[in-house]
Amino acid sequence: MRHVISVLVDNVPGVVSRISGLFSGRGFNIESFVGAPSLDPNFSRIIIVTEGNDQIIEQIIKQLNKLIDVIKVTDLTGSQFVDREMILIRVKAEESNRAEVLRIVDIFRGKIVDVSPNFYTIEITGDQGKLEAILDLLKPLGIQEIVRSGCIALPRAKKK
Amino acid sequence: MRHVISVLVDNVPGVVSRISGLFSGRGFNIESFVGAPSLDPNFSRIIIVTEGNDQIIEQIIKQLNKLIDVIKVTDLTGSQFVDREMILIRVKAEESNRAEVLRIVDIFRGKIVDVSPNFYTIEITGDQGKLEAILDLLKPLGIQEIVRSGCIALPRAKKK
Repeated sequence: MRHVISVLVDNVPGVVSRISGLFSGRGFNIESFVGAPSLDPNFSRIIIVTEGNDQIIEQIIKQLNKLIDVIKVTDLTGSQFVDREMILIRVKAEESNRAEVLRIVDIFRGKIVDVSPNFYTIEITGDQGKLEAILDLLKPLGIQEIVRSGCIALPRAKKK
Repeated sequence: MRHVISVLVDNVPGVVSRISGLFSGRGFNIESFVGAPSLDPNFSRIIIVTEGNDQIIEQIIKQLNKLIDVIKVTDLTGSQFVDREMILIRVKAEESNRAEVLRIVDIFRGKIVDVSPNFYTIEITGDQGKLEAILDLLKPLGIQEIVRSGCIALPRAKKK
Protein backbone atom coordinates (compact mmCIF):
# COMPACT_ATOMS: atom_id res chain seq x y z
CA MET A 1 0.00 0.00 0.00
CA ARG A 2 1.13 3.54 -0.78
CA HIS A 3 1.98 5.52 2.35
CA VAL A 4 2.39 9.28 2.69
CA ILE A 5 4.34 10.04 5.86
CA SER A 6 4.81 13.57 7.19
CA VAL A 7 7.63 14.14 9.68
CA LEU A 8 8.36 17.37 11.56
CA VAL A 9 12.03 17.51 12.55
CA ASP A 10 14.64 19.81 14.06
CA ASN A 11 16.49 21.58 11.26
CA VAL A 12 19.96 20.14 11.99
CA PRO A 13 22.67 18.65 9.75
CA GLY A 14 22.22 14.93 9.19
CA VAL A 15 18.51 14.69 9.85
CA VAL A 16 17.66 13.90 6.20
CA SER A 17 20.25 11.17 6.15
CA ARG A 18 19.12 9.61 9.47
CA ILE A 19 15.47 9.54 8.40
CA SER A 20 16.03 8.19 4.90
CA GLY A 21 18.45 5.64 6.39
CA LEU A 22 15.64 4.07 8.42
CA PHE A 23 13.81 3.23 5.18
CA SER A 24 16.79 1.97 3.23
CA GLY A 25 17.94 -0.07 6.24
CA ARG A 26 14.84 -2.18 5.69
CA GLY A 27 15.23 -2.32 1.92
CA PHE A 28 12.33 0.07 1.34
CA ASN A 29 12.48 2.13 -1.77
CA ILE A 30 11.30 5.71 -1.39
CA GLU A 31 9.06 6.90 -4.23
CA SER A 32 9.62 10.54 -3.35
CA PHE A 33 11.35 12.41 -0.55
CA VAL A 34 10.85 16.11 0.15
CA GLY A 35 12.49 18.07 2.94
CA ALA A 36 12.04 21.83 3.27
CA PRO A 37 11.78 24.50 5.97
CA SER A 38 8.54 24.76 7.94
CA LEU A 39 6.93 28.04 9.06
CA ASP A 40 9.39 28.17 11.96
CA PRO A 41 12.89 28.01 10.41
CA ASN A 42 14.13 25.95 13.35
CA PHE A 43 12.08 23.02 12.06
CA SER A 44 11.81 21.23 8.73
CA ARG A 45 8.94 19.24 7.30
CA ILE A 46 9.79 16.00 5.51
CA ILE A 47 7.22 14.20 3.34
CA ILE A 48 8.05 10.66 2.31
CA VAL A 49 6.01 8.57 -0.14
CA THR A 50 6.72 4.86 -0.06
CA GLU A 51 5.05 1.65 -1.02
CA GLY A 52 5.21 -1.31 1.31
CA ASN A 53 3.95 -3.73 3.87
CA ASP A 54 1.80 -1.98 6.51
CA GLN A 55 3.44 -3.77 9.44
CA ILE A 56 6.94 -2.76 8.41
CA ILE A 57 5.81 0.84 7.89
CA GLU A 58 4.40 0.76 11.42
CA GLN A 59 7.79 -0.37 12.74
CA ILE A 60 9.58 2.37 10.80
CA ILE A 61 7.20 4.97 12.27
CA LYS A 62 7.95 3.69 15.77
CA GLN A 63 11.68 4.02 15.07
CA LEU A 64 11.20 7.50 13.59
CA ASN A 65 9.49 8.53 16.82
CA LYS A 66 12.55 7.41 18.79
CA LEU A 67 14.97 9.72 16.91
CA ILE A 68 15.74 12.78 19.03
CA ASP A 69 15.52 15.16 16.05
CA VAL A 70 11.98 14.00 15.28
CA ILE A 71 9.19 16.09 16.76
CA LYS A 72 6.13 14.52 15.19
CA VAL A 73 5.37 11.72 12.73
CA THR A 74 2.02 11.47 10.94
CA ASP A 75 1.07 8.68 8.55
CA LEU A 76 -1.48 10.49 6.38
CA THR A 77 -2.56 7.27 4.68
CA GLY A 78 -6.19 6.50 5.41
CA SER A 79 -6.97 10.02 6.62
CA GLN A 80 -8.18 12.88 4.46
CA PHE A 81 -5.43 15.02 3.05
CA VAL A 82 -4.66 17.40 0.20
CA ASP A 83 -1.71 16.21 -1.85
CA ARG A 84 -0.07 18.04 -4.72
CA GLU A 85 2.99 17.68 -6.83
CA MET A 86 4.71 20.14 -9.17
CA ILE A 87 6.52 19.25 -12.33
CA LEU A 88 8.69 21.27 -14.72
CA ILE A 89 8.68 19.84 -18.25
CA ARG A 90 10.90 20.99 -21.10
CA VAL A 91 9.17 20.03 -24.31
CA LYS A 92 10.04 20.55 -27.96
CA ALA A 93 8.09 23.50 -29.36
CA GLU A 94 8.87 23.83 -33.02
CA GLU A 95 6.63 25.59 -35.45
CA SER A 96 4.75 22.41 -36.28
CA ASN A 97 3.70 21.50 -32.74
CA ARG A 98 3.66 24.79 -30.77
CA ALA A 99 -0.11 25.20 -31.05
CA GLU A 100 -0.69 21.64 -29.81
CA VAL A 101 1.65 22.14 -26.82
CA LEU A 102 -0.16 25.38 -25.91
CA ARG A 103 -3.55 23.66 -26.11
CA ILE A 104 -2.43 20.91 -23.74
CA VAL A 105 -0.89 23.45 -21.31
CA ASP A 106 -4.13 25.40 -21.37
CA ILE A 107 -6.34 22.37 -20.69
CA PHE A 108 -4.18 21.37 -17.72
CA ARG A 109 -3.99 24.97 -16.47
CA GLY A 110 -0.21 24.93 -16.69
CA LYS A 111 2.10 27.90 -17.04
CA ILE A 112 4.92 28.42 -19.51
CA VAL A 113 7.84 29.53 -17.36
CA ASP A 114 10.63 29.64 -19.96
CA VAL A 115 10.79 29.90 -23.72
CA SER A 116 13.68 29.34 -26.10
CA PRO A 117 13.56 29.15 -29.90
CA ASN A 118 12.82 25.41 -29.87
CA PHE A 119 11.62 24.56 -26.36
CA TYR A 120 8.97 25.54 -23.83
CA THR A 121 9.43 24.87 -20.12
CA ILE A 122 6.05 24.17 -18.55
CA GLU A 123 5.02 24.21 -14.88
CA ILE A 124 2.11 22.00 -13.86
CA THR A 125 0.72 21.22 -10.40
CA GLY A 126 -1.78 18.57 -9.44
CA ASP A 127 -2.15 15.08 -8.11
CA GLN A 128 -0.18 12.16 -9.46
CA GLY A 129 -2.90 11.16 -11.94
CA LYS A 130 -3.01 14.58 -13.56
CA LEU A 131 0.76 14.76 -13.90
CA GLU A 132 0.94 11.29 -15.47
CA ALA A 133 -1.82 12.31 -17.91
CA ILE A 134 -0.01 15.40 -19.17
CA LEU A 135 3.28 13.50 -19.45
CA ASP A 136 1.54 10.87 -21.59
CA LEU A 137 0.15 13.59 -23.87
CA LEU A 138 3.42 15.49 -24.22
CA LYS A 139 5.71 12.46 -24.67
CA PRO A 140 4.90 11.98 -28.38
CA LEU A 141 5.65 15.70 -28.97
CA GLY A 142 9.18 15.30 -27.59
CA ILE A 143 9.95 15.81 -23.89
CA GLN A 144 13.60 16.76 -23.41
CA GLU A 145 13.78 16.84 -19.62
CA ILE A 146 11.54 16.87 -16.54
CA VAL A 147 11.99 17.51 -12.87
CA ARG A 148 9.33 16.61 -10.28
CA SER A 149 8.90 18.05 -6.80
CA GLY A 150 7.64 14.84 -5.25
CA CYS A 151 4.37 14.78 -3.34
CA ILE A 152 3.63 17.30 -0.60
CA ALA A 153 0.56 16.93 1.59
CA LEU A 154 -1.45 18.66 4.30
CA PRO A 155 -4.17 16.93 6.32
CA ARG A 156 -7.60 18.41 5.59
CA ALA A 157 -8.84 20.91 8.18
CA LYS A 158 -11.07 19.21 10.73
CA LYS A 159 -14.75 20.13 10.65
CA LYS A 160 -15.82 21.85 13.85
CA MET B 1 27.04 31.00 -1.40
CA ARG B 2 23.74 29.28 -2.19
CA HIS B 3 24.17 26.20 -4.36
CA VAL B 4 21.52 24.31 -6.30
CA ILE B 5 22.80 20.85 -7.14
CA SER B 6 20.97 18.47 -9.45
CA VAL B 7 21.86 14.77 -9.25
CA LEU B 8 20.58 12.01 -11.53
CA VAL B 9 20.73 8.65 -9.74
CA ASP B 10 19.72 5.03 -10.08
CA ASN B 11 16.38 4.52 -8.37
CA VAL B 12 17.59 2.03 -5.72
CA PRO B 13 16.99 1.77 -1.95
CA GLY B 14 19.49 3.78 0.07
CA VAL B 15 20.46 6.29 -2.56
CA VAL B 16 18.77 9.22 -0.76
CA SER B 17 20.53 8.30 2.45
CA ARG B 18 23.96 7.92 0.81
CA ILE B 19 23.71 11.27 -0.96
CA SER B 20 22.40 13.26 1.99
CA GLY B 21 25.03 11.56 4.17
CA LEU B 22 27.83 13.15 2.11
CA PHE B 23 26.55 16.59 3.09
CA SER B 24 25.94 15.89 6.76
CA GLY B 25 29.31 14.13 7.03
CA ARG B 26 30.86 17.54 6.44
CA GLY B 27 28.47 19.35 8.77
CA PHE B 28 26.58 20.96 5.88
CA ASN B 29 23.00 21.82 6.51
CA ILE B 30 20.66 21.15 3.60
CA GLU B 31 18.14 23.93 2.99
CA SER B 32 15.92 21.71 0.89
CA PHE B 33 16.14 18.18 -0.48
CA VAL B 34 13.86 16.82 -3.18
CA GLY B 35 14.03 13.34 -4.67
CA ALA B 36 11.45 12.12 -7.18
CA PRO B 37 11.24 9.85 -10.24
CA SER B 38 12.64 11.12 -13.52
CA LEU B 39 11.07 10.51 -16.95
CA ASP B 40 12.60 7.02 -16.95
CA PRO B 41 11.35 5.29 -13.76
CA ASN B 42 14.70 3.53 -13.37
CA PHE B 43 16.29 6.86 -12.45
CA SER B 44 15.50 9.53 -9.87
CA ARG B 45 16.35 13.20 -9.92
CA ILE B 46 17.53 14.74 -6.64
CA ILE B 47 17.75 18.51 -6.20
CA ILE B 48 19.65 19.77 -3.17
CA VAL B 49 19.84 23.40 -2.08
CA THR B 50 22.61 24.20 0.38
CA GLU B 51 24.59 27.18 1.55
CA GLY B 52 28.33 26.88 2.04
CA ASN B 53 31.93 27.30 1.15
CA ASP B 54 32.54 26.82 -2.58
CA GLN B 55 35.64 24.65 -2.09
CA ILE B 56 33.86 22.20 0.18
CA ILE B 57 30.91 22.01 -2.25
CA GLU B 58 33.40 21.18 -4.98
CA GLN B 59 34.77 18.33 -2.86
CA ILE B 60 31.27 17.02 -2.17
CA ILE B 61 30.51 17.07 -5.91
CA LYS B 62 33.66 15.06 -6.57
CA GLN B 63 32.58 12.51 -3.96
CA LEU B 64 29.06 12.40 -5.39
CA ASN B 65 30.55 11.55 -8.78
CA LYS B 66 32.34 8.60 -7.22
CA LEU B 67 29.15 6.94 -5.90
CA ILE B 68 28.14 4.07 -8.17
CA ASP B 69 24.43 5.00 -8.03
CA VAL B 70 25.18 8.51 -9.30
CA ILE B 71 24.85 9.01 -13.04
CA LYS B 72 25.34 12.77 -13.35
CA VAL B 73 25.91 15.70 -11.01
CA THR B 74 25.28 19.30 -12.11
CA ASP B 75 25.91 22.35 -9.94
CA LEU B 76 23.40 24.79 -11.43
CA THR B 77 24.84 27.70 -9.47
CA GLY B 78 26.25 30.33 -11.80
CA SER B 79 24.49 28.95 -14.88
CA GLN B 80 21.05 29.98 -16.07
CA PHE B 81 18.24 27.88 -14.72
CA VAL B 82 14.52 27.99 -14.00
CA ASP B 83 13.79 27.33 -10.33
CA ARG B 84 10.37 26.98 -8.76
CA GLU B 85 8.95 25.96 -5.46
CA MET B 86 5.40 25.03 -4.44
CA ILE B 87 3.82 25.73 -1.10
CA LEU B 88 0.53 24.66 0.47
CA ILE B 89 -0.71 27.12 3.10
CA ARG B 90 -3.67 26.57 5.41
CA VAL B 91 -4.84 29.99 6.52
CA LYS B 92 -7.72 31.12 8.72
CA ALA B 93 -10.63 32.25 6.57
CA GLU B 94 -13.36 33.53 8.83
CA GLU B 95 -16.04 35.92 7.69
CA SER B 96 -13.98 38.95 8.67
CA ASN B 97 -10.89 38.14 6.61
CA ARG B 98 -12.07 35.89 3.75
CA ALA B 99 -12.17 38.73 1.21
CA GLU B 100 -8.64 39.81 2.12
CA VAL B 101 -7.31 36.23 1.80
CA LEU B 102 -8.95 35.90 -1.62
CA ARG B 103 -7.45 39.21 -2.78
CA ILE B 104 -3.95 38.07 -1.81
CA VAL B 105 -4.42 34.66 -3.49
CA ASP B 106 -5.61 36.42 -6.63
CA ILE B 107 -2.66 38.83 -6.76
CA PHE B 108 -0.20 35.95 -6.39
CA ARG B 109 -2.10 33.78 -8.89
CA GLY B 110 -2.60 31.10 -6.29
CA LYS B 111 -5.27 28.41 -6.22
CA ILE B 112 -7.59 27.48 -3.37
CA VAL B 113 -7.32 23.69 -3.22
CA ASP B 114 -9.37 22.96 -0.10
CA VAL B 115 -12.06 24.79 1.86
CA SER B 116 -13.47 24.11 5.30
CA PRO B 117 -15.80 26.35 7.32
CA ASN B 118 -12.90 28.28 8.87
CA PHE B 119 -9.86 27.58 6.70
CA TYR B 120 -8.67 27.84 3.12
CA THR B 121 -5.79 25.73 1.82
CA ILE B 122 -3.90 27.66 -0.83
CA GLU B 123 -1.42 26.42 -3.44
CA ILE B 124 1.21 28.88 -4.68
CA THR B 125 4.18 28.31 -6.96
CA GLY B 126 7.06 30.67 -7.66
CA ASP B 127 10.59 31.50 -6.70
CA GLN B 128 11.69 31.82 -3.11
CA GLY B 129 11.13 35.60 -3.01
CA LYS B 130 7.50 35.30 -4.11
CA LEU B 131 6.76 32.57 -1.57
CA GLU B 132 8.32 34.58 1.27
CA ALA B 133 6.26 37.61 0.20
CA ILE B 134 2.93 35.78 0.36
CA LEU B 135 3.83 34.17 3.69
CA ASP B 136 4.59 37.63 5.12
CA LEU B 137 1.21 38.91 3.93
CA LEU B 138 -0.79 35.94 5.20
CA LYS B 139 0.97 35.56 8.59
CA PRO B 140 -1.01 38.39 10.28
CA LEU B 141 -4.26 36.76 9.05
CA GLY B 142 -3.44 33.50 10.82
CA ILE B 143 -1.50 30.73 9.11
CA GLN B 144 -2.25 27.35 10.68
CA GLU B 145 0.13 25.14 8.77
CA ILE B 146 2.35 25.12 5.69
CA VAL B 147 4.22 22.55 3.67
CA ARG B 148 6.84 23.47 1.08
CA SER B 149 8.06 21.37 -1.82
CA GLY B 150 11.64 22.64 -1.73
CA CYS B 151 13.25 24.08 -4.81
CA ILE B 152 13.22 22.22 -8.12
CA ALA B 153 15.23 23.48 -11.06
CA LEU B 154 15.90 22.87 -14.75
CA PRO B 155 18.81 24.45 -16.67
CA ARG B 156 17.57 26.87 -19.32
CA ALA B 157 17.53 25.47 -22.86
CA LYS B 158 20.69 26.40 -24.72
CA LYS B 159 20.32 28.86 -27.56
CA LYS B 160 21.18 27.30 -30.90
